[in-house]
Amino acid sequence: MQQNSDIALVTKTAPIATVTHGGRAKCLQRLVRLDLPVPKTVSLSFEMVHRIASNEGMDVANILSEFSQDDLLCVRPSSESPDWGGPRAVLNVGINDAQYERLCNTLGQDAAVQIYLRFVQGYSIHVARLDPDMFDHIQGQDEAALREALDAYEQETEEQFPQDRSVQLAEVLRSMARAWEGTTARLLRQAKGAPADAGLGLVVQKMAFGLGQGEYGSGVLQLVDSQTGHPQITGRYLRQSQWRDALEDGQDSLFLTNDPRGPSLEEVCPDIFEALKAEALRMRIRLREEMQIEFTIEDGVLFILDGVKVARQAPAAVRIAVSLAEDGIISKEEALMRVEPHALGELLHRQVAHGAVRDVIACGIAASPGAATGKIVFSAEDALALQAREEDCILVRRETSPEDIRGMHAAQGVLTERGGMTSHAAVIGRGMGLPCIVGASAIRFHTRRKQLSAPDGRIFREGDIITIDGTTGQILAGAADLVEASMDDKFVTLMEWSTETCDIDVRANADTLIDAKIARDFGAQGIGLCRTEHMFFDAERMTVMQEMIFANSREERETVLERLLPMQRADFIKLFEIMDGMPVCIRLFDPPLHEFLPSDRSGLRDLAEALDLPLSDVTQRVETMSEHNPMLGLRGVRLGISVPEIYEMQARAIFEATIAAQSSGRPIVPEIMIPLVSAKREVELVKSRIDSVAADVRAKTNEHFDYQIGVMVETPRAALRADEIALNSSFLSFGTNDLTQMTYGLSRDDAGRFMGAYVQQGVFHEDPFHILDLDGVGELLRLGSERARTASSEITLSLCGEHGGSPDSIAFCRQNRFDYVSCSPYRVPLARLAAAQLAISEKTA
Amino acid sequence: MQQNSDIALVTKTAPIATVTHGGRAKCLQRLVRLDLPVPKTVSLSFEMVHRIASNEGMDVANILSEFSQDDLLCVRPSSESPDWGGPRAVLNVGINDAQYERLCNTLGQDAAVQIYLRFVQGYSIHVARLDPDMFDHIQGQDEAALREALDAYEQETEEQFPQDRSVQLAEVLRSMARAWEGTTARLLRQAKGAPADAGLGLVVQKMAFGLGQGEYGSGVLQLVDSQTGHPQITGRYLRQSQWRDALEDGQDSLFLTNDPRGPSLEEVCPDIFEALKAEALRMRIRLREEMQIEFTIEDGVLFILDGVKVARQAPAAVRIAVSLAEDGIISKEEALMRVEPHALGELLHRQVAHGAVRDVIACGIAASPGAATGKIVFSAEDALALQAREEDCILVRRETSPEDIRGMHAAQGVLTERGGMTSHAAVIGRGMGLPCIVGASAIRFHTRRKQLSAPDGRIFREGDIITIDGTTGQILAGAADLVEASMDDKFVTLMEWSTETCDIDVRANADTLIDAKIARDFGAQGIGLCRTEHMFFDAERMTVMQEMIFANSREERETVLERLLPMQRADFIKLFEIMDGMPVCIRLFDPPLHEFLPSDRSGLRDLAEALDLPLSDVTQRVETMSEHNPMLGLRGVRLGISVPEIYEMQARAIFEATIAAQSSGRPIVPEIMIPLVSAKREVELVKSRIDSVAADVRAKTNEHFDYQIGVMVETPRAALRADEIALNSSFLSFGTNDLTQMTYGLSRDDAGRFMGAYVQQGVFHEDPFHILDLDGVGELLRLGSERARTASSEITLSLCGEHGGSPDSIAFCRQNRFDYVSCSPYRVPLARLAAAQLAISEKTA
Repeated sequence: MQQNSDIALVTKTAPIATVTHGGRAKCLQRLVRLDLPVPKTVSLSFEMVHRIASNEGMDVANILSEFSQDDLLCVRPSSESPDWGGPRAVLNVGINDAQYERLCNTLGQDAAVQIYLRFVQGYSIHVARLDPDMFDHIQGQDEAALREALDAYEQETEEQFPQDRSVQLAEVLRSMARAWEGTTARLLRQAKGAPADAGLGLVVQKMAFGLGQGEYGSGVLQLVDSQTGHPQITGRYLRQSQWRDALEDGQDSLFLTNDPRGPSLEEVCPDIFEALKAEALRMRIRLREEMQIEFTIEDGVLFILDGVKVARQAPAAVRIAVSLAEDGIISKEEALMRVEPHALGELLHRQVAHGAVRDVIACGIAASPGAATGKIVFSAEDALALQAREEDCILVRRETSPEDIRGMHAAQGVLTERGGMTSHAAVIGRGMGLPCIVGASAIRFHTRRKQLSAPDGRIFREGDIITIDGTTGQILAGAADLVEASMDDKFVTLMEWSTETCDIDVRANADTLIDAKIARDFGAQGIGLCRTEHMFFDAERMTVMQEMIFANSREERETVLERLLPMQRADFIKLFEIMDGMPVCIRLFDPPLHEFLPSDRSGLRDLAEALDLPLSDVTQRVETMSEHNPMLGLRGVRLGISVPEIYEMQARAIFEATIAAQSSGRPIVPEIMIPLVSAKREVELVKSRIDSVAADVRAKTNEHFDYQIGVMVETPRAALRADEIALNSSFLSFGTNDLTQMTYGLSRDDAGRFMGAYVQQGVFHEDPFHILDLDGVGELLRLGSERARTASSEITLSLCGEHGGSPDSIAFCRQNRFDYVSCSPYRVPLARLAAAQLAISEKTA
Repeated sequence: MQQNSDIALVTKTAPIATVTHGGRAKCLQRLVRLDLPVPKTVSLSFEMVHRIASNEGMDVANILSEFSQDDLLCVRPSSESPDWGGPRAVLNVGINDAQYERLCNTLGQDAAVQIYLRFVQGYSIHVARLDPDMFDHIQGQDEAALREALDAYEQETEEQFPQDRSVQLAEVLRSMARAWEGTTARLLRQAKGAPADAGLGLVVQKMAFGLGQGEYGSGVLQLVDSQTGHPQITGRYLRQSQWRDALEDGQDSLFLTNDPRGPSLEEVCPDIFEALKAEALRMRIRLREEMQIEFTIEDGVLFILDGVKVARQAPAAVRIAVSLAEDGIISKEEALMRVEPHALGELLHRQVAHGAVRDVIACGIAASPGAATGKIVFSAEDALALQAREEDCILVRRETSPEDIRGMHAAQGVLTERGGMTSHAAVIGRGMGLPCIVGASAIRFHTRRKQLSAPDGRIFREGDIITIDGTTGQILAGAADLVEASMDDKFVTLMEWSTETCDIDVRANADTLIDAKIARDFGAQGIGLCRTEHMFFDAERMTVMQEMIFANSREERETVLERLLPMQRADFIKLFEIMDGMPVCIRLFDPPLHEFLPSDRSGLRDLAEALDLPLSDVTQRVETMSEHNPMLGLRGVRLGISVPEIYEMQARAIFEATIAAQSSGRPIVPEIMIPLVSAKREVELVKSRIDSVAADVRAKTNEHFDYQIGVMVETPRAALRADEIALNSSFLSFGTNDLTQMTYGLSRDDAGRFMGAYVQQGVFHEDPFHILDLDGVGELLRLGSERARTASSEITLSLCGEHGGSPDSIAFCRQNRFDYVSCSPYRVPLARLAAAQLAISEKTA
């Protein structure tokens, strides 16, 4: 054979690289270098395979020259990354009538028939592209069946089944090469991140026979459990089988190591088992990875055909990476790089078990990860009732509003008809770590009749049990098997290593004390966004808020707010206690006041009664306050300026809590953030009011304390005018949820109705509420951060939208020298890992 | 006298300039240069007066050295611009007991008493700042009264009334100088555009006496009518009077020229009248302005004390300027510069007569200029009913919606409780030239009870007559005197000159055929924005739209839209006919579909009946379509992509109308504009569909036609990504209404509730929906236009928001080399004049 890199015999020294011959070829070379018993293998480069696909030449003779005349061959794909897929392997190339006769003599007729039959069927379907049905009538695995199969081929093609090994190999190679270049295959692998011109290599390997008279068989082995990553010899061995047949259902496969459930390879071939285990351990160390071995025993002799990275669920990925590093096989940095940040989400939440039966009703938007099972309830009240009876439930709503929050706390999961990734349900769900599916518009929600109609016509009623998988967006009928969250020791270690490596801080968006606790547990370096309005939605405070809204003068409002002051102060005291001196950024009251008012008749009646006012007055007042576009209405700083008493009360509560924290030995410098700013004068006005509240508190208490005032940059104008806004701000935090809404002119609450179609048609590459739009919104962040820094070099910059936890956004923030990102508590681990990976990549680049 | 520029005798050669001595001093010098009989005058510079105010020295002796010992003096203010105000004139300085005796002998006792009394009273009140009430008890104008006045002064001040002319003059000068530097005076003149350090000059003039035995008196004369500007000798003369007393009510003033209503100056002093007339004509020519002359006849001898620019209403301003240019006195350019663009608005609309009695109920936002009187109606139906009875009405609504448009057409004016400058009522009102007041929140609107409660407690009921003044925002009880619009020959001439001078095109936003006609009449150079959705709001089409919305498939929708096609085609055929080959930019359908659906119960019932569907189905469908923030929802290009049939139908209608226009000899290249774009792919998708509709129409008709496709830039993202959007666009038109909303994160429909307070507190300098925010929104326009031009140097750029008509915006657009602005038809004249002025200013700069 002419040894060149396009057609290379796999030896210890052959020029084989992943980027020219693919991962499988490279891995086989490593196995050869370890002196493992790998059957002779020839590797075809991407270049060669591309020429084959284009009919630009194929030197089959050159390949075959490497093998002896009687060798049967197996062809397998070898792309750069195993994730990119590839055509199916074809076994037993070279079998023909003559070889069949020979094998009948050496391996026995049964083995010979199976080998020939497997090739005829594989060749017909995958190479000649004949209809798979054509073999349906063939029963059994005897010579008669073989003849029938050969006849079927001849009838279908009007040609004899090819007998020449060169022809067979040439056709197999051409077929596999072309399959790779097909449009569907290309789109599929591009979806997995492959470049448009990703190449395919092919490996041609001498068959080791798993069929014959004596100890013949095939199997796979790995040293860890794919789900958990815990050490456990895992795999199967099937006598009289080829390839990965041992893993198929309904086979009498043997266990590998001794097992009470049945016979094992260890029992029947103890030496081979020991050898296999030893090779696997060697591979782990030398290949620096947990590998799955594909092996064949040919007449009692072990051959190792292939090694592939052990497939792994998220918990296993973490444990494998950390263990390799702890065993000194790889560095901590490499361990960090090997875990996909998004996979961490799975560890933090209960999940539908891998391989569980899924009776899918429909799919929605996977808005908050994790799985939950429970009875359907259609109202927050019902959710609370079930919680009281200690029953699990799934809260099903058209969409959620602040009034549903207590119901969400009581439920195991939330399912809504409307909304997108940043709808109320989604944001709150993620914040609480509550599994949530939104925008499930394929299901018809009859909330009044308390029914759901599935697309297939099934009806689900209140009390019926469903499972929602917030990780995939699937809504399942009944109770699916779930596995618990697994934040074990290895996870903790990984997080510690991340923090050592990070060079941008990760804070959490935490609105409640529970959030804050979770944030600390997940290693957040402070709170980047505490939305204070959520503190007002509990029943007692809600009533006070309503009284405040209906107050007729500044004095009346102040009197009412006096009653909220101690509650707010208590909130902040506890918050500072939990965060124990870490930075806490508190956003002043933001939502429009009408969110605190009822809209339905009975709510209005209750309110009228509570306020002792005529219903018509209350109704009119509520109507007057309604807004066409509440997102763009009287909220945020506009409310702060129109009704200054609210911010004054909040500032007082913050300062008094600060003094309390100081006196209990946990000094803190609270960061007060003004929302929805669009003009510098807004900042000046609010700042001067807050400063005078501070002066008053200092005077009254004779205590000293510090604080910072900053701005949440949520309007394009605030970003564009960041220079002048920065002059009165200690920090700017970019609120990318609202900023995205305004930059696109697109409401997150309403986008759900067409966002799916928009992303599918490629109008938007991604849902910009999910993935930060670097081109448009990012441009404002760049302009804003540059301008702010020009005006005030000491200013603290951060991002606190929903995007804060995503690796893309973190990369962007690092590039633009932001001080921290802030995301929901459950995304903190992901963000820390992503940040660590970015730091490592930069160092090694 | 020491002749220096700080204290200058006004001679033909004295160094007197408006910027050092003020306009009055300069004007007096011009009169002296014309050899008019001006009494001796000394001018004090700004510098001098400032020193006087600061007590840094005053050389009264130097001033007095110019006058003879017996001269009485008058002191008048002379600021740089007459609009900036100034302290009152003080007459008769120098009178004392001795002079009194002398005047008794020369002018007679009556005259002497009046002269002395006037000075004592003026001095006491304006110089010594005594209580004006102190003279209330004094009756008559005889010597006893004079003595009483002098006694009163002595009692009040415990000093004798100053007898020394130097002292009197010094006090008068100091008092006037200080009054100018007072805070109130400064704020008042700054509000009128004066710089913070604007100076005051003073002129000291020898008194010519209008009192005495013989033909003594004073008066004013001008050659034109102040309201209309038509030539007409105007003014009064009052015997035995000083200053402008002739103009006061209740005086027996004489007419100037012969008049059936009474005796005239022309009759009693024909020579003096002729002389005055001749001087006035000379002044007009030499001072290049219509002047009002202040004159005094002293013993039959004419003195001209002063000349001031004739005060003028808007129609007079136009006529005076154009006439001066037509008479060759000033250039066309100067005529253009002399008319304030905003004043033109008054000419285009009926107005409340100058001086009419105004019984003001309350004030709102002056949203669309002009005045209207009519009966109050509370619904569009009632407006139509009154129109049928040929009665005038004012449509009063909480706010208007598209359903009210027919009612608005039927009404004489519109008054709403809510909304701002760009609310629906305001925009439509301005577009229709319909007087409109919005945001009249001081009035309580009881629309169900059909009542308005005024802030003073008065109740106005349906059928009561009110007048709304959309120019000032005043709501008046009853029918006020109105004057008709006056677009006469001079107006037309001014507009022609504007167009000759303009270097940026002015197009009109015109949605209906009526709009288009008005736009042409006002000289618009095309249509910059034709909002096609307004064509769908009439009853017949509305029903078809609703059917389309409820259609269940693309085919069904297409079938329904087939019925709209001929109607749309007819719209465009007529539009192209009116515009006669001028460019027409048609915006594709923009509003959310739910705007076409009823929201109240009876509307829903009607719809269910019309569609033959169960009410519950219709209700649910309508509910499903409702949006939280319709401004940021499924509208514009998002709808165009989700329901492509609408744009396809519109494109077909446009192309078929284009062919019809061609065949009738009026070829046109229609400009098709895509609304609410935020990503380039949106443009690509819509463009390719429109292109294929064009291909289809060409193939079916075998006719050739051209068209352009462009983008309305309304989202910050479209502005930021203008480079890539420009690649598929022939033009970009910045829609500053929506762009302002999104840049500020502020809905124009909801901003009304706090905008007033915000502007008052200086949070925003101006309502950004009214005055283009150059800092924020303007920044996006700058970035967008630069980026677009970089990508495509040939691209047409324009601004088509409500701001398009304002001089500031036009200046901005010229600076940034936009091709045109587009504004509502009624603002086209203003815009053209403003654009002409900018071009002239630039040329002469």
